[in-house]
Amino acid sequence: MRSTSITQACNLIIFGAKGDLARRKLFPSLYQLEKIGAIHPDTRIIGVGRAEWSLVMYIEVVYVALKTFMPDPIDESLWHVFRARLDFCNLDVYQTERFVLLLDKLKSIDIETVNYLAMPPDTFGAICKGLSTIGLNKKSNRVVIEKPLGTNLASARIINAQISEYFEEKQIYRIDHYLGKETVLNLLALRFANYLFSSNWDNNTIDHVQITVAEEVGIEGRWKYFDSVGQMRDMIQSHLLQILTIIAMSPPTNLSADCIRDEKVKVLHSLRKINCNNVHDVTVRGQYTSGFIQGKPVPGYLEEEGANKSSNTETFVSICVNIDDWRWTGVPFYLRTGKRLPIKCSEIVIFFKKPMINLFSDSYKDLPNNKLTIRLQPDEGIDVQILNKVPGLGHKHRLHTTKLNLSFYKDFCPEHVVDAHERLLLETMRGIQALFVRCDEIEGAWKWVDSIVQAWELENNAPKLYKAGTWGPTDSVTMIAKDGRFWNEYKFYT
Amino acid sequence: MRSTSITQACNLIIFGAKGDLARRKLFPSLYQLEKIGAIHPDTRIIGVGRAEWSLVMYIEVVYVALKTFMPDPIDESLWHVFRARLDFCNLDVYQTERFVLLLDKLKSIDIETVNYLAMPPDTFGAICKGLSTIGLNKKSNRVVIEKPLGTNLASARIINAQISEYFEEKQIYRIDHYLGKETVLNLLALRFANYLFSSNWDNNTIDHVQITVAEEVGIEGRWKYFDSVGQMRDMIQSHLLQILTIIAMSPPTNLSADCIRDEKVKVLHSLRKINCNNVHDVTVRGQYTSGFIQGKPVPGYLEEEGANKSSNTETFVSICVNIDDWRWTGVPFYLRTGKRLPIKCSEIVIFFKKPMINLFSDSYKDLPNNKLTIRLQPDEGIDVQILNKVPGLGHKHRLHTTKLNLSFYKDFCPEHVVDAHERLLLETMRGIQALFVRCDEIEGAWKWVDSIVQAWELENNAPKLYKAGTWGPTDSVTMIAKDGRFWNEYKFYT
Repeated sequence: MRSTSITQACNLIIFGAKGDLARRKLFPSLYQLEKIGAIHPDTRIIGVGRAEWSLVMYIEVVYVALKTFMPDPIDESLWHVFRARLDFCNLDVYQTERFVLLLDKLKSIDIETVNYLAMPPDTFGAICKGLSTIGLNKKSNRVVIEKPLGTNLASARIINAQISEYFEEKQIYRIDHYLGKETVLNLLALRFANYLFSSNWDNNTIDHVQITVAEEVGIEGRWKYFDSVGQMRDMIQSHLLQILTIIAMSPPTNLSADCIRDEKVKVLHSLRKINCNNVHDVTVRGQYTSGFIQGKPVPGYLEEEGANKSSNTETFVSICVNIDDWRWTGVPFYLRTGKRLPIKCSEIVIFFKKPMINLFSDSYKDLPNNKLTIRLQPDEGIDVQILNKVPGLGHKHRLHTTKLNLSFYKDFCPEHVVDAHERLLLETMRGIQALFVRCDEIEGAWKWVDSIVQAWELENNAPKLYKAGTWGPTDSVTMIAKDGRFWNEYKFYT
Repeated sequence: MRSTSITQACNLIIFGAKGDLARRKLFPSLYQLEKIGAIHPDTRIIGVGRAEWSLVMYIEVVYVALKTFMPDPIDESLWHVFRARLDFCNLDVYQTERFVLLLDKLKSIDIETVNYLAMPPDTFGAICKGLSTIGLNKKSNRVVIEKPLGTNLASARIINAQISEYFEEKQIYRIDHYLGKETVLNLLALRFANYLFSSNWDNNTIDHVQITVAEEVGIEGRWKYFDSVGQMRDMIQSHLLQILTIIAMSPPTNLSADCIRDEKVKVLHSLRKINCNNVHDVTVRGQYTSGFIQGKPVPGYLEEEGANKSSNTETFVSICVNIDDWRWTGVPFYLRTGKRLPIKCSEIVIFFKKPMINLFSDSYKDLPNNKLTIRLQPDEGIDVQILNKVPGLGHKHRLHTTKLNLSFYKDFCPEHVVDAHERLLLETMRGIQALFVRCDEIEGAWKWVDSIVQAWELENNAPKLYKAGTWGPTDSVTMIAKDGRFWNEYKFYT
């Protein structure tokens, strides 16, 4: 399948060419884009690293990465095309004067250059400075960065400042890979192309919203890194707040990057502050103990390899978020995310209000809410839960909840399921910024998150424990139950 | 399967025991109710007719009817139970004095009696009078009648007056078998148990409504009868207006028969009058000529057996109905019904408005409406058409309409698909009147229909011709097109 959406020719420079991100995500994604013909024939892919590799050695590294991290076998004729794009530049990014070496690798500097910084944020300043010395920060060029983008507002501001010394905001592409997911992208169509929903998207009709990002995995060998961050900063600040802002934003003037992001930032600025006064009521921190996931025993967080036994870092968070704007006053957004939960799944559930009057109280004491569920994974799709009469001869109205269902991959049958990184890489090459996070979004999210983290630190209280394989501490259930609500139950709820 | 919803014991008297209605519908329905254990053991079924039949002969007639008109073979042990309920009374309903014979057939007159008048309306007065002479019109007893209930307001009033001389409105069960259809019954649940719809059920959100009852058959040997009535009086006055009122009514105070019917009558009283001033703009009359139905040639209406070649009777009607109340002002209800259309299907389609702003105009010039389709037949169920982004890497928003679907029989898998007559017969035995048409509904519908028929007659214009196997005269398309709208297209649209 040849894509009609081929990008212009560019130089794609990947800093951190032997790192995890490059090998696991970027090379396989680029290979897939090659496969669908989305990469311009003249585009070159230059890896940058400190290793003393020859081009041949580098090509071998890429080949092994593709073999290791792609589900399908490599097509040798495609690989032949792909490898011809590759080059390698040996460079310590702190040796600013050596960046000229990079210039030699570019056949042309007249085409756009996409600089992908697949390295830790403390190197960003040095890389941007180096790029500027060889003119690669010129207005048509871009820089791509990925989380973690700081651990609080102060450190995020430093990163933003270091990059913005050399690149303008219009050149900076901050990846949150949730923004590349098909169902997240579909949120714009769902909200703004369907009057059935757009006319209903406020506190007149919606009772509350739940956003769940559940991980089945634990720490996966990243204990030290994770422990310094925790679930709040790792997941809520980025993915969950991004989803929340897209769900909650007012209609943008148009679909340009800045119009969309203007609306998202307004939501972030409207989040009700959580501090020592209310942190107990609206947040729950949890940490998993040993338990079972799908029947298999798994260790607790403090028993993981490399663990500091006295860590108070949270692996689970649930929060009741209030948005103090005209659209959402009175409609809580409940967020929860955690590791070692029963299943891997991400869902947004819009709970509509119950009918004002229950005409069916004889047979149904309490009418369930209509629910619009947007499944980010697994089985990306949407469904609407409605109530129908059960067919039959009973003279009372027996009602039953049923789902109107749409499964993206079953219904659309695309030839290839697009990975978030594929899409986002393609957008960086296209130079379309709509799916990337703007500076003020990052900072707005950190500002709100910092206040919660500080309140937790001031209280100095330990996280509530929960058994691996459960849906977090019981306090999480209590938090929502005192509002008269319940967490959505999943098919595989254990 | 034993039903939990068994009725009380009653005498069910069927006047017109050898007629079409009794043999095709009533006996098979009663057999099915027997099968699910819904008929009380002491209930007796007494046929009344002028034939000089012995009980044995009558039992044979019923047996043959069951064999002829039921899809499944007769279960002999069930038949054994069923036949024991049967009795026959030879009676000319005009010989009032002979009604005493009927009393002898009833084991008890202390139990309720349901009098099913499966005969032409001109006999109703005589039957009711006869029943009164033997006290069978007492308050706990009922009378069941079925269309045609008059051919205009005047004749309907006569029928109503004749019956109401002997029976109170609370005793009179007027059948419109559309009210026994599962999906029509479900309308109450759909509208009033789902806030997603109930909060949207007005001219703020709904653009227009279409109600289609399409028949594939022609006249089926009933030419003379049909020609004296026409599609308007045969179908619009009854089934289509019944559906319209249930869709359009305001929420009833509760689900009692009279609360629901009060609201339905209010809709009938709010229908904008159609007369000579506007009849051309908002109605289309059609008559079929020869053509093809699913590849097979069929004759035109004037070529059918027994046809009067100069008949101007319509076999197709489409109407744009306006409801002048606060909820529906500005929301037309388009009705269409006809014979010899491409397929047999009945559907209600709620067209929601288009989004006020089209954010996707780059890729989709004209956003389609969200549609809620309620399928009465075939494949009873509901679906919601929404717009989603087509998965893929295109940077423009490619949108696609998709359906969230619920098929009643696939999703609920009932053991037995309940026929409308089964349900309605059961309700007459239960004495619950909610699914039957009240006197003022019948009269309200006739009043509105009469005005249209009179306008047509005054104009004296011939119906527009349409080929059998098409969706009616092109004027029907034009009528809705001049409002900027289109008839819903069906899967099997030809």
